[in-house]
Amino acid sequence: MTDFGTKDGNVGVMKGVIWGICPDARIADVSHMIGAQNVREAALILARSTPFFPKGTIHLVVVDPGVGTARRPLAARIGSAYYVGPDNGAVTLWLESARAEGSALEFVRLDQSVYWLPQVSHVFHGRDIFAPVAAHLAAGVALRALGSPVDDPVVLELPRPRRFRNRWEGEVIHIDHFGNVASNIRAEDLGDALLEKELMQVRIGSTRISGLVNTFGERPAGEAVALLGSTGNLIVSVVNGNAAVSLGAAVGDAFHVSIQRAQDAPDRERRE
Amino acid sequence: MTDFGTKDGNVGVMKGVIWGICPDARIADVSHMIGAQNVREAALILARSTPFFPKGTIHLVVVDPGVGTARRPLAARIGSAYYVGPDNGAVTLWLESARAEGSALEFVRLDQSVYWLPQVSHVFHGRDIFAPVAAHLAAGVALRALGSPVDDPVVLELPRPRRFRNRWEGEVIHIDHFGNVASNIRAEDLGDALLEKELMQVRIGSTRISGLVNTFGERPAGEAVALLGSTGNLIVSVVNGNAAVSLGAAVGDAFHVSIQRAQDAPDRERRE
Amino acid sequence: MTDFGTKDGNVGVMKGVIWGICPDARIADVSHMIGAQNVREAALILARSTPFFPKGTIHLVVVDPGVGTARRPLAARIGSAYYVGPDNGAVTLWLESARAEGSALEFVRLDQSVYWLPQVSHVFHGRDIFAPVAAHLAAGVALRALGSPVDDPVVLELPRPRRFRNRWEGEVIHIDHFGNVASNIRAEDLGDALLEKELMQVRIGSTRISGLVNTFGERPAGEAVALLGSTGNLIVSVVNGNAAVSLGAAVGDAFHVSIQRAQDAPDRERRE
Repeated sequence: MTDFGTKDGNVGVMKGVIWGICPDARIADVSHMIGAQNVREAALILARSTPFFPKGTIHLVVVDPGVGTARRPLAARIGSAYYVGPDNGAVTLWLESARAEGSALEFVRLDQSVYWLPQVSHVFHGRDIFAPVAAHLAAGVALRALGSPVDDPVVLELPRPRRFRNRWEGEVIHIDHFGNVASNIRAEDLGDALLEKELMQVRIGSTRISGLVNTFGERPAGEAVALLGSTGNLIVSVVNGNAAVSLGAAVGDAFHVSIQRAQDAPDRERRE
Repeated sequence: MTDFGTKDGNVGVMKGVIWGICPDARIADVSHMIGAQNVREAALILARSTPFFPKGTIHLVVVDPGVGTARRPLAARIGSAYYVGPDNGAVTLWLESARAEGSALEFVRLDQSVYWLPQVSHVFHGRDIFAPVAAHLAAGVALRALGSPVDDPVVLELPRPRRFRNRWEGEVIHIDHFGNVASNIRAEDLGDALLEKELMQVRIGSTRISGLVNTFGERPAGEAVALLGSTGNLIVSVVNGNAAVSLGAAVGDAFHVSIQRAQDAPDRERRE
Repeated sequence: MTDFGTKDGNVGVMKGVIWGICPDARIADVSHMIGAQNVREAALILARSTPFFPKGTIHLVVVDPGVGTARRPLAARIGSAYYVGPDNGAVTLWLESARAEGSALEFVRLDQSVYWLPQVSHVFHGRDIFAPVAAHLAAGVALRALGSPVDDPVVLELPRPRRFRNRWEGEVIHIDHFGNVASNIRAEDLGDALLEKELMQVRIGSTRISGLVNTFGERPAGEAVALLGSTGNLIVSVVNGNAAVSLGAAVGDAFHVSIQRAQDAPDRERRE
């Protein structure tokens, strides 16, 4: 995963470096269209992806605004998988899940230059440090041979949803390729409220949606719907359309959810 | 092949799922830029691609506006290759070729959830059903173990060119990355007329092109030319330019072809 | 590497062809977003990429405005790697480095159609000639079995920087995904002047930058900086921003570098 795009050949070059060290490595592109220097987006997509990869997968993530400065280069074991990349918080959400599950964690600061390319530029550590380190790890080098232990990886301050009695306030954290608008409100935040999907109200900007559906096809094309996305976040979608465009929604916008029970109605009316 | 785009990590996640089940699978991305929910475009690109892949290739195609609804999940053997994806007509054109060649066909409705991920979301069957099924097929599971036989896969109604005496009326079915404008009129529709390429007239919108060329480089840069594309469809191109932009052409536009023989001229003048 | 883009399936089809001939081939996409018919850009990205791939790598490069015309199809050994593609100058910069290093060079004109697909279209030699040839080469066929020796591959006339006493005049040759503006002035052109980075002045359009930095993070976000890029070219960047947009820079623009020593100042003032 990088923010390099796909036109300049930099991703291909990293694969060349990896295969020069570990010819049998299988490499999947997760995304190279992370917003430039957008570590928060990388953290989100990384945490959504890791559960679906085989044990032992090495997640090489280079979104690196601090390249060539004092920011630390890292490798880590997080549960049954590995991270290689700059110490910038890209692991934040993955680390939260891992800690919640009691997974083993081990971080090293990369300082063994024998595992890097012979010449290290100031501006492309993805090619010169991280790709070769990931390849050596894939080829069997032990994590702790790559550097010295550290225990304080950078973590990002991420916006958390706030819970009120029958109401949640979150925000938009991702717009996907289809224009689906994802919030930071997750299934586990909503808990038992999900048993009453038909009573849930979602508001984003001036758009109000009554009830949650299970999937897009339950409503006619063009209708705005709210539902749980494939990774458990509450999203708003326009059936066969682009919700972000239709609703004018953007990352950072407020995202409101409430439960409208009969007995709550007067109370809610007063509150608004 | 999907309509997922490449920024959100969903394609990478499907590869993670596949390699978790079948570590030796080789995976080629055919396209992830199919228009959102555009099954017709998927059908076209799939039919163009299948002849060039090795025997036994599994074509995993997820363009799935009906995800989570009653639309059937399918796997199929079509000649010497396989299809895995929703039952939405993406196989239409491939199936036509296969039937024309008398190839063996076998369809199953996926209903053996032992071959799926343990948890199936309502909105991402590409990850939860189709990728694992494709991987099990690649790993040697028999097609009929994956589900129950069906014999009525969905087929799309696609626009067909109409033939007159010395004239064909088709339509634009694809605009490619270069802006080449492809029609649904194929070499086999034109038949013997292709022996008189210099007599053929192509009209699209207000643009008229006299004669067919064999390749772009036969004319100077900037000139509009008509020729047979790499998969046998009649296309209009602007040499080193973008025909769709220059001609203002779009999918669905009418595409006319005629043969202008000396003896036809008066007749054709009257007709127009 | 191609200029095919990623939506039409043409790159995937080439992989299908390759794996049909050489099932064990590992394939890395370097770029499919080369500007349409932009052989100069292909030459630049190819030369930047080749040093980082393993020995024996086959670089299959199809940017082919002359497809189907008399332009020659080539395969070549360049040092320890291979080129397969049209004879259009895409190897120009790679060849320069190889000659400077005294590497072995061997070119053949592809004329042994037994190594091609049985049917060769006029418009897609990437699929019909170059992919199968690259696959046969990968599978162990000798270079000279593929065609007849030639010794005059096409080379491009590329803009070269001009050197004055304490001044260099180059031009912009590439804008990358981040908007970094790369010149054709290289570290080796600047030579000892790089020992006095703080004295160097860069001018592009109306933007003047004093001093070279080593990396982006040395300056605050939004500031324009000049530095050596990852492949040794002098570039201008805006920290966490897009220099091409901020400076209104484009390929072909003039790119000036000078050294401003104390004793030079009057001289430079007069000169300007």
